[in-house]
Amino acid sequence: MASLKSWFPVPKSSHFSLANLPFGIISTTSKPTPRPAVAIGDHALDLQEFAASGAFSSLGFDVSVFSKPTLNEFAALGRPVHRSVRKYLQDVFAENTTHADVLKNNKDLQGKILFARDQVKLHLPMHIGDYTDFYAGKNHAFNVGCLFRGPDNALQPNYTHLPVGYHGRASSVVVSGTPITRPNGQILENPAATPKVPTFSACKRLDIELELGAFVCTGNEMGKHIPISEAAEHIFGYVLLNDWSARDIQAWEYVPLGPFLAKNFGSTISPWVVLADALEPFRCKGIPNETQLLPYLKEKEENNVYDIRLQVDITPAGGSTTTILNSNGRNLLFSFPQMLAHHSIGGCPMATGDLLGSGTISGTETGTEGSLLECSKGGKETIKLNGGVERKFLEDGDVVTIYGVCGSEESGLVGFGECSGKILPAPKI
Amino acid sequence: MASLKSWFPVPKSSHFSLANLPFGIISTTSKPTPRPAVAIGDHALDLQEFAASGAFSSLGFDVSVFSKPTLNEFAALGRPVHRSVRKYLQDVFAENTTHADVLKNNKDLQGKILFARDQVKLHLPMHIGDYTDFYAGKNHAFNVGCLFRGPDNALQPNYTHLPVGYHGRASSVVVSGTPITRPNGQILENPAATPKVPTFSACKRLDIELELGAFVCTGNEMGKHIPISEAAEHIFGYVLLNDWSARDIQAWEYVPLGPFLAKNFGSTISPWVVLADALEPFRCKGIPNETQLLPYLKEKEENNVYDIRLQVDITPAGGSTTTILNSNGRNLLFSFPQMLAHHSIGGCPMATGDLLGSGTISGTETGTEGSLLECSKGGKETIKLNGGVERKFLEDGDVVTIYGVCGSEESGLVGFGECSGKILPAPKI
Repeated sequence: MASLKSWFPVPKSSHFSLANLPFGIISTTSKPTPRPAVAIGDHALDLQEFAASGAFSSLGFDVSVFSKPTLNEFAALGRPVHRSVRKYLQDVFAENTTHADVLKNNKDLQGKILFARDQVKLHLPMHIGDYTDFYAGKNHAFNVGCLFRGPDNALQPNYTHLPVGYHGRASSVVVSGTPITRPNGQILENPAATPKVPTFSACKRLDIELELGAFVCTGNEMGKHIPISEAAEHIFGYVLLNDWSARDIQAWEYVPLGPFLAKNFGSTISPWVVLADALEPFRCKGIPNETQLLPYLKEKEENNVYDIRLQVDITPAGGSTTTILNSNGRNLLFSFPQMLAHHSIGGCPMATGDLLGSGTISGTETGTEGSLLECSKGGKETIKLNGGVERKFLEDGDVVTIYGVCGSEESGLVGFGECSGKILPAPKI
Repeated sequence: MASLKSWFPVPKSSHFSLANLPFGIISTTSKPTPRPAVAIGDHALDLQEFAASGAFSSLGFDVSVFSKPTLNEFAALGRPVHRSVRKYLQDVFAENTTHADVLKNNKDLQGKILFARDQVKLHLPMHIGDYTDFYAGKNHAFNVGCLFRGPDNALQPNYTHLPVGYHGRASSVVVSGTPITRPNGQILENPAATPKVPTFSACKRLDIELELGAFVCTGNEMGKHIPISEAAEHIFGYVLLNDWSARDIQAWEYVPLGPFLAKNFGSTISPWVVLADALEPFRCKGIPNETQLLPYLKEKEENNVYDIRLQVDITPAGGSTTTILNSNGRNLLFSFPQMLAHHSIGGCPMATGDLLGSGTISGTETGTEGSLLECSKGGKETIKLNGGVERKFLEDGDVVTIYGVCGSEESGLVGFGECSGKILPAPKI
């Protein structure tokens, strides 16, 4: 694939090549009002100001969507509009742009609307109505199932028939860079003792979960459903997601209704929403599913997930960074369109801004597991970090950063930037 | 308790006596914009118009909260303001009001702001950010646990130590009167067969769950928590809640992460939010808990739940109404302040408009079970309705109505009105 060359400087190593152009919400010191922007190279383009200059007028949509503090109203316009905006922006920035007067030849405007990315503050890109976390990373589900129930019963009978999922907490989804406070809660220090009496403690088994997130752009009426053939058109774009997890709180609380406080103290997403269209060239097959699916989950498209190289780093306080695992977006049994078709099949109303998490994306080899629970074999083995530092689970001051990227520098990287969070100590109660 | 007498006609049998004054959102044919109102007898008082007339000016809060399409901004002002507004309204309507000029002697204004309740349209009273459903009805948890695991293991070891709960779906919470479409989904026709292969079907075991709901008025910052001693002050008020449940979809999908599509096709609440203060006189003890609770869950107040008489009626299409069960709000092991203290103990940010469900409120006697699953002993026995009609679970066209009321006609009823929904057939897919 030939690189899209730009008259504007875009470093080769940037996740935000002209092939990407992800959308986010920025504010700046000169203008503290959060508003939409697009990332290009080391810069962010202020879409509100750009629209005010007359850009987009040929595209025939209401540019007031770029004066909102979230991307919801832009997302709600639907994928044909996202496509035309991205295409227009690709043309505006192309070396041989047909719209040279719009920006290339307008240095004044460039000075007003292009900000160095390290000078802007990034906000949560969407107002999230509901957040649902799926469990479609089969290798993770198998690894965790082995730890709890042994390899013969690792996966429940429903697992290959439907994308297992549960409702998460929307209010605790935060943007990359927001600190995460270690939760206090009830834990069972000695699970073998009788009677089982919990103690109150700061979480001792604080974990990460490497996931992808998808934002819904258009929903469905309550009582209707989104057919699998149309589901992809309801997805605005994708982010990285760290579904922080308190394993000891989870182990005690989760029967019979599922994880609750073990998850709702924080979930971090990357700030730039990579449009579904930007990922099109990176479609690939996921984990094969030999189960005969019911028709409402059958996709025509075999290449229904994305070849996204995923990486997780840990940086202890005052220490150096270690990459602890590498995985890939292909490690999913169900696609996001399948998740959306399933979610709505009973008539649940999906809405603009809903966030769907993939579930933890683990590979099958050592070093590809998407959680510390798996890396440390349930806390039995240590994970070696640089400088002789060891971990089983996270310690206070640790910074965890997830990266995700597709493609090559030659053709222009399509990446997610970073999804990062630092662990603060639990409050004394 | 002496009745609060009013110059305004309030029928003795009304749930909305002067001792109540619940808040809701109305619209009218003459003014279709949804806005806050208070229910009194057979009428609804338009708070936007009342505030515009100069009422409330002595109370010193920003009355623009009464020009919003939800009660969130009013709720966010906190319980001291709710108290003073309710007290002011009680005085305005009192027989010997000290504010006779405000409304009693102003027939013109009465004509403008008081609407017959059967002439107003009722809307969802709050914008719900997150909805959490607890499981604090111990008798229900025991009954259901017996059906699944037998009486010896009916309750999980954690059950008496913490209010078990899970995240629900906010987008499918609807106001009373909204039809509920029977969900389609995956069900396992023959759970004993091997291998387990689900079929696609309309739900065949459609159920109700009789619950109370509480709305949060003020929340907490992420990473902080709401102490049990302050939790009651974070609760705006209460509604009836029917947590419709698809038992066959639930049985197949719920392992290992809890109920999902079995719940998210619809949850119905009553339209009028009964303020926490209106329920104060009806405090009582809940189900005794012999477990030594951790300090963060220990309440000073022993009378931590409410004596609310609850009733569920079924009206088949074209048939007559049968009361199928009676229960009481006292049938809870944990109080709403305990639920809120638990929910936030790990730092989960609670916000204005969050809805907490109690879990199904069952008594211990026949005829007091809060779900059809319990009434029909897991679908094994029939429930007799009037006119020789029988049910195990709900059929299309059935209307289910929940009622809840405290107090007596002598002292003025404090009730919730009704929480009602009609079952529509599943769409053909």
